[in-house]
Amino acid sequence: MNLKPLFDRVVLKPIVKENKTKSGILIPDTVGDEPLVAEVVAVGTGDDFEGKKQEMSVKVKNKVLYNKYGAMTFKCDNNEEYVILRQSDILGIFEEE
Amino acid sequence: MNLKPLFDRVVLKPIVKENKTKSGILIPDTVGDEPLVAEVVAVGTGDDFEGKKQEMSVKVKNKVLYNKYGAMTFKCDNNEEYVILRQSDILGIFEEE
Amino acid sequence: MNLKPLFDRVVLKPIVKENKTKSGILIPDTVGDEPLVAEVVAVGTGDDFEGKKQEMSVKVKNKVLYNKYGAMTFKCDNNEEYVILRQSDILGIFEEE
Amino acid sequence: MNLKPLFDRVVLKPIVKENKTKSGILIPDTVGDEPLVAEVVAVGTGDDFEGKKQEMSVKVKNKVLYNKYGAMTFKCDNNEEYVILRQSDILGIFEEE
Amino acid sequence: MNLKPLFDRVVLKPIVKENKTKSGILIPDTVGDEPLVAEVVAVGTGDDFEGKKQEMSVKVKNKVLYNKYGAMTFKCDNNEEYVILRQSDILGIFEEE
Amino acid sequence: MNLKPLFDRVVLKPIVKENKTKSGILIPDTVGDEPLVAEVVAVGTGDDFEGKKQEMSVKVKNKVLYNKYGAMTFKCDNNEEYVILRQSDILGIFEEE
Amino acid sequence: MNLKPLFDRVVLKPIVKENKTKSGILIPDTVGDEPLVAEVVAVGTGDDFEGKKQEMSVKVKNKVLYNKYGAMTFKCDNNEEYVILRQSDILGIFEEE
Repeated sequence: MNLKPLFDRVVLKPIVKENKTKSGILIPDTVGDEPLVAEVVAVGTGDDFEGKKQEMSVKVKNKVLYNKYGAMTFKCDNNEEYVILRQSDILGIFEEE
Repeated sequence: MNLKPLFDRVVLKPIVKENKTKSGILIPDTVGDEPLVAEVVAVGTGDDFEGKKQEMSVKVKNKVLYNKYGAMTFKCDNNEEYVILRQSDILGIFEEE
Repeated sequence: MNLKPLFDRVVLKPIVKENKTKSGILIPDTVGDEPLVAEVVAVGTGDDFEGKKQEMSVKVKNKVLYNKYGAMTFKCDNNEEYVILRQSDILGIFEEE
Repeated sequence: MNLKPLFDRVVLKPIVKENKTKSGILIPDTVGDEPLVAEVVAVGTGDDFEGKKQEMSVKVKNKVLYNKYGAMTFKCDNNEEYVILRQSDILGIFEEE
Repeated sequence: MNLKPLFDRVVLKPIVKENKTKSGILIPDTVGDEPLVAEVVAVGTGDDFEGKKQEMSVKVKNKVLYNKYGAMTFKCDNNEEYVILRQSDILGIFEEE
Repeated sequence: MNLKPLFDRVVLKPIVKENKTKSGILIPDTVGDEPLVAEVVAVGTGDDFEGKKQEMSVKVKNKVLYNKYGAMTFKCDNNEEYVILRQSDILGIFEEE
Repeated sequence: MNLKPLFDRVVLKPIVKENKTKSGILIPDTVGDEPLVAEVVAVGTGDDFEGKKQEMSVKVKNKVLYNKYGAMTFKCDNNEEYVILRQSDILGIFEEE
């Protein structure tokens, strides 16, 4: 995935519903308006649109819960689906047990 | 529940209507647009989206009344339902008698 | 009523239409979009969502006129109805004669 | 009228269409979306919702033209109709000749 | 016209379509959404709603082009029609040749 | 064209589709929602509505591409059509080759 | 392409779906609401509408993913299609391998 996100944006790789990550994170059902689970694959610099800088709160490899209404889906590389969104649309990080 | 909420978000465990907490808090009816009751299970750091920090006004174990229109529901762990929302959508804290 | 309102919120006990308070305040008709009358039962700390503090302009026992569109109704204690709203949705205070 | 308006709000007593005030102010027709004429009966302190203070630009007894879309009507005292609105919805003051 | 506009508002007297002012200004057609031409008859103090002061950019007697969507029409004096609007809805001033 | 635009507004003379300017600028097709081409005929002072001043980025005689959704059309002089808009609705300037 | 974009705007040349750039960037499918791929052809100065300056985050020749809802399409030169948008609607830059 060779897209470098701009500003405070983050690229995610959605985790398919039936999967369970190595560390045993349970994937939530994703019917209707529920937020979704994904893995962070790229993180912007944290500059906002007016040129102020803020720290990014997520890192590559984090499993996150995100609000799909702020997210856009695109295909890249071998037709894989990715999601791009502003970090404020990431709701939380799943902690590895 | 292993989700660490980001920014000023809070994870809640809804309290089922028929229940009565140990301390005797009465659960309000939840028809229509009425706010709901839940218990706080995780609290963000209080950073806002622009990088300013504010103190969080709720703590884990607080029983709270919250506005469901700012809240998103997700399932975690053993398929349990949780709610995630910004702390500004928490209306008040029930005080133990 | 054991709910402690957060931020600049206020809990009100609506005054039923046919009543007349001890001090003789006349209760306005409440058809359609008209604001309503209630008594203040709990007052938040005045912190706003960004962590600034402002003084609260109402006190417990004040009779107030409020805008019902910013208000949420909930039931508490012995199934009594209360209203919670931000203080900016309180329009004015009825002065005792 | 014993309502003390909060913040930058103002209570008005609408002037009935057929009337002409003592000083001869002509009452505008009030069909459709046109602004209306009223007399100021109570004025808030000028604090805004964030706690800053601004000077109030109208005084009790001023005859004013106001935008009815920012105004709420309520009944008080002997079932008299009053209007409450923020001072920014008062368009102008009629000067006595 | 005895209305003193508040804040940064301006009172205008619309110029009827068939007229041509003394200085020969051509009156634009006013079909549909097009802005309209009027003469300034009263100007506010330039205080804005938050108490900051700004200079007013128009003067009494200016012929102006204005955006009718920010304007409210009212009748005054001998049933004459006037328009009141914020100065930001005045688009430009016609210069006398 | 004797209209002096206020604030950061600009008056444009639309360039008719079939035309080609002296310098050979090609006029874009203007079907649907596409931006349009025009020549700047008058430029405001750059004061914004709150009294701050900003530099104007266009000059009289510039050929510009503009967003028609922020623009208002009016007729002036010999019934010629002009457009008035805020400079932020001007997208770019065509450079003479 | 002789359009100099104003403020923080950027002109893009959309990359047609079937193409593959020299460096092997795969072009994403562009059905429905998905963001699109384009090459930067001109970059504004970075002044924003209020006169503050911010650094531009993209350069001419960058391959970018952009949000088509903030973009306007226009034709120029030999009837070629271009896109103009604010830099905040550019989601990310494809890195050359």
